[in-house]
Amino acid sequence: MQQDERPSAAAGITRRLADFVQRTTWADIPMVVRHEAKRALVNYYAVALAGAPDPTLDKAVAMAARFRASGVAAVIGRRERMDTLNAAALNAMSANVYDFDDTHLPTIIHPTAPVAAALFALAESQPMRGDEFLLAFVLGVDIECRIGNAVSPDHYQRGAHITSTCGVFGAAAAVAKVLGLDAQQIVWALGNASAQACGLVETLGTMSKSLSVGNAARNGLLSALLAAEGFSGPDAPIEGERGFLQVASVAPRPEVIVEDLGSDWALMRNTYKPYPCGVVLNPVIEACLALQHHASWTFDDVDRVELTGHPLLRERTDRPGVRTGRASQVSAQHAVAVTLARGKAGLAEFSDEAVADLRLRAFGEHISFIDEPSWPVESAQVTVILRSGERVRHRVVSAHGSLASPLTDDELAGKLRTLAAHSAGHVDPERLLDTLWQLDELADAASPMRIAAPAR
Amino acid sequence: MQQDERPSAAAGITRRLADFVQRTTWADIPMVVRHEAKRALVNYYAVALAGAPDPTLDKAVAMAARFRASGVAAVIGRRERMDTLNAAALNAMSANVYDFDDTHLPTIIHPTAPVAAALFALAESQPMRGDEFLLAFVLGVDIECRIGNAVSPDHYQRGAHITSTCGVFGAAAAVAKVLGLDAQQIVWALGNASAQACGLVETLGTMSKSLSVGNAARNGLLSALLAAEGFSGPDAPIEGERGFLQVASVAPRPEVIVEDLGSDWALMRNTYKPYPCGVVLNPVIEACLALQHHASWTFDDVDRVELTGHPLLRERTDRPGVRTGRASQVSAQHAVAVTLARGKAGLAEFSDEAVADLRLRAFGEHISFIDEPSWPVESAQVTVILRSGERVRHRVVSAHGSLASPLTDDELAGKLRTLAAHSAGHVDPERLLDTLWQLDELADAASPMRIAAPAR
Repeated sequence: MQQDERPSAAAGITRRLADFVQRTTWADIPMVVRHEAKRALVNYYAVALAGAPDPTLDKAVAMAARFRASGVAAVIGRRERMDTLNAAALNAMSANVYDFDDTHLPTIIHPTAPVAAALFALAESQPMRGDEFLLAFVLGVDIECRIGNAVSPDHYQRGAHITSTCGVFGAAAAVAKVLGLDAQQIVWALGNASAQACGLVETLGTMSKSLSVGNAARNGLLSALLAAEGFSGPDAPIEGERGFLQVASVAPRPEVIVEDLGSDWALMRNTYKPYPCGVVLNPVIEACLALQHHASWTFDDVDRVELTGHPLLRERTDRPGVRTGRASQVSAQHAVAVTLARGKAGLAEFSDEAVADLRLRAFGEHISFIDEPSWPVESAQVTVILRSGERVRHRVVSAHGSLASPLTDDELAGKLRTLAAHSAGHVDPERLLDTLWQLDELADAASPMRIAAPAR
Repeated sequence: MQQDERPSAAAGITRRLADFVQRTTWADIPMVVRHEAKRALVNYYAVALAGAPDPTLDKAVAMAARFRASGVAAVIGRRERMDTLNAAALNAMSANVYDFDDTHLPTIIHPTAPVAAALFALAESQPMRGDEFLLAFVLGVDIECRIGNAVSPDHYQRGAHITSTCGVFGAAAAVAKVLGLDAQQIVWALGNASAQACGLVETLGTMSKSLSVGNAARNGLLSALLAAEGFSGPDAPIEGERGFLQVASVAPRPEVIVEDLGSDWALMRNTYKPYPCGVVLNPVIEACLALQHHASWTFDDVDRVELTGHPLLRERTDRPGVRTGRASQVSAQHAVAVTLARGKAGLAEFSDEAVADLRLRAFGEHISFIDEPSWPVESAQVTVILRSGERVRHRVVSAHGSLASPLTDDELAGKLRTLAAHSAGHVDPERLLDTLWQLDELADAASPMRIAAPAR
């Protein structure tokens, strides 16, 4: 694995990213990208409110309370107050705990949680206008997804949790931007982030996963705060001979990191989930809902189910016998059974209560996968074979929530309303939505936090 | 990289490690291993005292002071007091900042810093006997080095900073042991650690490196504290299909993790450095000292120098033109020049002041490498070619500080005395040494901390 000859395309990539972050202004961000940033934040608060009461957060908050330095920053949907670093970690955890957050399709990064959580935590203790926040957010998402592009697909396939490993760079870049760091300091921030890039797919479906997502926000923020004080790093943490790309991928593509920089924005490939599950389950659930909605049969009439889709569907979600709500969110067996049985696929269907239904768990043995490598991941076909021998099938070409069929603004707002109600119920979703849709005009970027974590 | 068929040797490895940690008692630890643990701790305090006043620590301590929850734990060689997590991070940083700490030769892990720093930080706020500390320390070092064995050599060669990536497991296991966790909780602690395993070789020679070493201690400690509260992780974070081994190595050897468990102790392959440099430079410096000591010529008479050694010598240390003391510690060019010029190789020779000597920097162009893959890394030959054309050479077969020529207890004590003097000078090295050599008989494992960070 010695790489003594580097492709020249890799030369100076970290520096070019740093220059880009340093020089880009709000005027450089197209209107559609600005609007997509707000959509991402609406989705962020929706999923963070949903995640806030999860036992993972209860335990993480209790531990953070033992090691918090101050109470200057809020935790979405909760009453506890934290220092800036702990708040960044906890809010990123909340937003990602249910795997209900957004997805940058080329990489399967969930880009918003690490970046937004870091920025909002900082906004609560230093002046930050809404447009400054949004500019930094757009840049942070761009950096994390561009680095993710360069290590895809093998990085994630081998088992690196790409949201965490790349999220720390995004958070560092975003915070570096709002701190007004110069290009050298931004290189250091990315270097400090490179030393803290980790997370494993093996932890998905367990509480451990949230540690890496929280760390991405916390450590990205810390990386930039340290760089501002002269805590220096290597010149080429990303493209260097033993830097992030070489360690993260067996076939890195450094050149794609800076391709169409400033004209092709990663946020425009971002999507939002209609269901609280791994994104590859979207078309499966949609097909099951369609079948169930028009069915002349009941769940008890079903003998078995065949799932046809991209191999990633099987690789990521072939998990029979799950015993926790967390694990059920990445289990095709549970998703199919619960959706066919209940005709719904909301948070309640992917809860500890839902997986306790032994009838659903037993059905897992009756589900098989058929790989179709030529299909995109947003496609799937569900074939239900009834005890009578009858076969009914539904094929979804582009699942709702994909780029071809994005959630509308109204649907995103509806998701926030639903999940705010799922949460403790102290948050006014209409005020929060109004604030987010006009964030670029607000003098105080932390305004949404005060609505999403009201003092009681 | 799909690994749907796992070798059976991998089955249950995390669980077997957890059982081992849970059931091993002080009586199971051989006397030679107990003594080696104390030697490692003498070396740890020596190098932490040396690192304490470094600018990296000044900046890290200042940042930690903004985010510290309490002042229950000390920072070696300094007067600041921190919470347990921050103290763990900062002391691991101090011990490793100069690359003067110990080396587990099969992996090039510096094993003590992450484990000892986590344990001592905890010992300051909860009762812990000296023998309990040492048992946990031995086990933590064993776990981190065993995991490191399984991903060597490609993990480190590709650029993962193995001290950090494996250190977090060692710290988690050690803290889990002193907390008295059961085997399931230890599996969770290792799972929480797996989500936080990172660090890049590209950052070596910069401040960024210290972040990952500090995180290894801090996050390993946090992993076990969380596990104690039921913060749960995957069943197979190490050997799982998308677990640490698969992500960390292209050719992992899971079976070696549990080979001779409980009879072959990693600490017995631990070594201590006589010079504050990357371990591969040991034989080079020793040869230069020998040549210089007997020389009838001066540095000004030297035309050029040839270094013959294992390719790792060139790969890790071919760094001409370094401009910081930190970078000089992994630069063969600087090490050769300064040692030939001054006849010494202490901390002063690898400082910002030393690299500012333009005569030394210019000499870097006159040094060449000759790879000799059949030689072990503890061997090297230095050939000095004088302006007169005369060639003088010295070959070191087993550098002092290698397993074949270990530092004696007296030499380790001398290293602590020297480095305590280099530090602020408020630490009594004799009291510290007395405490460490009898640590197994002390009721309070935190006693050395009170000597090494005296209130002033």
